[in-house]
Amino acid sequence: MNVLLILCHPERQSFNGGLIDVALSALQSRGHSVELDDLYGEGFDPVEHAELYVDPVNPDYFAPLTEQRALYDRKGLPPDIVREIKRLDWADLTIFQFPLWWHAQPAMLKGWLDRVFVYGGIYSGTQRYDRGYFRGKRAMLSVTTGSPQAAFMPFGRGGDMTRLLAPMHASLNYVGYSVLAPQVSYGVQGGGISYQGREAFERHLGCLKDDWASRLMSIEDESAIPFAGWNDWDDSGVLHHNHPARWQI
Amino acid sequence: MNVLLILCHPERQSFNGGLIDVALSALQSRGHSVELDDLYGEGFDPVEHAELYVDPVNPDYFAPLTEQRALYDRKGLPPDIVREIKRLDWADLTIFQFPLWWHAQPAMLKGWLDRVFVYGGIYSGTQRYDRGYFRGKRAMLSVTTGSPQAAFMPFGRGGDMTRLLAPMHASLNYVGYSVLAPQVSYGVQGGGISYQGREAFERHLGCLKDDWASRLMSIEDESAIPFAGWNDWDDSGVLHHNHPARWQI
Repeated sequence: MNVLLILCHPERQSFNGGLIDVALSALQSRGHSVELDDLYGEGFDPVEHAELYVDPVNPDYFAPLTEQRALYDRKGLPPDIVREIKRLDWADLTIFQFPLWWHAQPAMLKGWLDRVFVYGGIYSGTQRYDRGYFRGKRAMLSVTTGSPQAAFMPFGRGGDMTRLLAPMHASLNYVGYSVLAPQVSYGVQGGGISYQGREAFERHLGCLKDDWASRLMSIEDESAIPFAGWNDWDDSGVLHHNHPARWQI
Repeated sequence: MNVLLILCHPERQSFNGGLIDVALSALQSRGHSVELDDLYGEGFDPVEHAELYVDPVNPDYFAPLTEQRALYDRKGLPPDIVREIKRLDWADLTIFQFPLWWHAQPAMLKGWLDRVFVYGGIYSGTQRYDRGYFRGKRAMLSVTTGSPQAAFMPFGRGGDMTRLLAPMHASLNYVGYSVLAPQVSYGVQGGGISYQGREAFERHLGCLKDDWASRLMSIEDESAIPFAGWNDWDDSGVLHHNHPARWQI
């Protein structure tokens, strides 16, 4: 497989950076081609704004979708966006590595979605979900948290992890990706904060890296999270009223 | 009340900007003091990165929480962050107005959370949730979507709106806010895209503004969404095993 690793962390030497190194080495050892996309390292600009658009459709009113579609159609997308789309086109599997900040991905990665998934190119009203641009490709999230695992289980005060990752999973599914179950490395405190002693903490981090490497050795065999698609919906985009996914079990 | 309106949209003339004007006028007519915080207008930088920190604790390894706490302690926070915290301190109610982009807030608003909610100042291990910095204050989200309402109800293909807003609600609750139910204005297509005819669309937008103005006339009487707090959790931060919030109803 061609595997793209997208890293979003301001410190390359961080534990997130360490998980990237684990992934590079594990995936290469299995014979996959791997490319690293270090968003902080490349200084990715996450802010969608009018100044990015030269010769806009409407210079007096900035409507992002209109301008995105126009730039895509005339092959005028900014170089950083062209580069990102090229990388995504190349990859069979794309892995996003990032810390959970304020119950979501860091702003830089949020803005990567805002800018890279271009309206009129990567998606449209008819080209999305299981008819999406990236259909046949796979994507997954690899996330670190500061708090320990219990806080992110159902009824945990950190918020149920399934709910916290739902928005980004929904976005990946929207553009056609098959989404693998996330890899969540819990209890990774930055900046010398640690709940346990130093030695126990280092051991914990070692185990997290081992878990990650071990999973990646057979990542190509995993099945994706099931999502509904066009055949499951009525004309309003709602699951058919007797669809089995509505059953309460 | 003192009400802070935080707007995150790249076009001030957009419908989001229009909802801000509605809020300004409705709240002022009720005698409240209102201040507008236009993040795009002020060019807010949403990227947390090492270069923001002069004289860092560790110049060779950027740990955001360590550096945030150090800057807060020596009163060295960047001017934009000082300004934002001052505004939040002033406000009894803070309203966030933004479009739903990729199932979440735009990157600029995500980065506002990443940078403004400073570790060691706005929160710490003991100062959070119902012991949070902003306890006694209220916050709410006012969100616009492109797709119509049905797509965001349970079993809708857009994703259940309750789940999509859960991360940001969790963050506001984390720093102590009482969170009011969100105002969601559905079916606001940007850039001349419209599911219905032009006239019906304009009428729809008018109704959305009326709903918003009408709600704001008695916003001070609303009760907040219930969240669990310190007394509800065991030592791992999980709801007590017999807590009534666990009941399936």
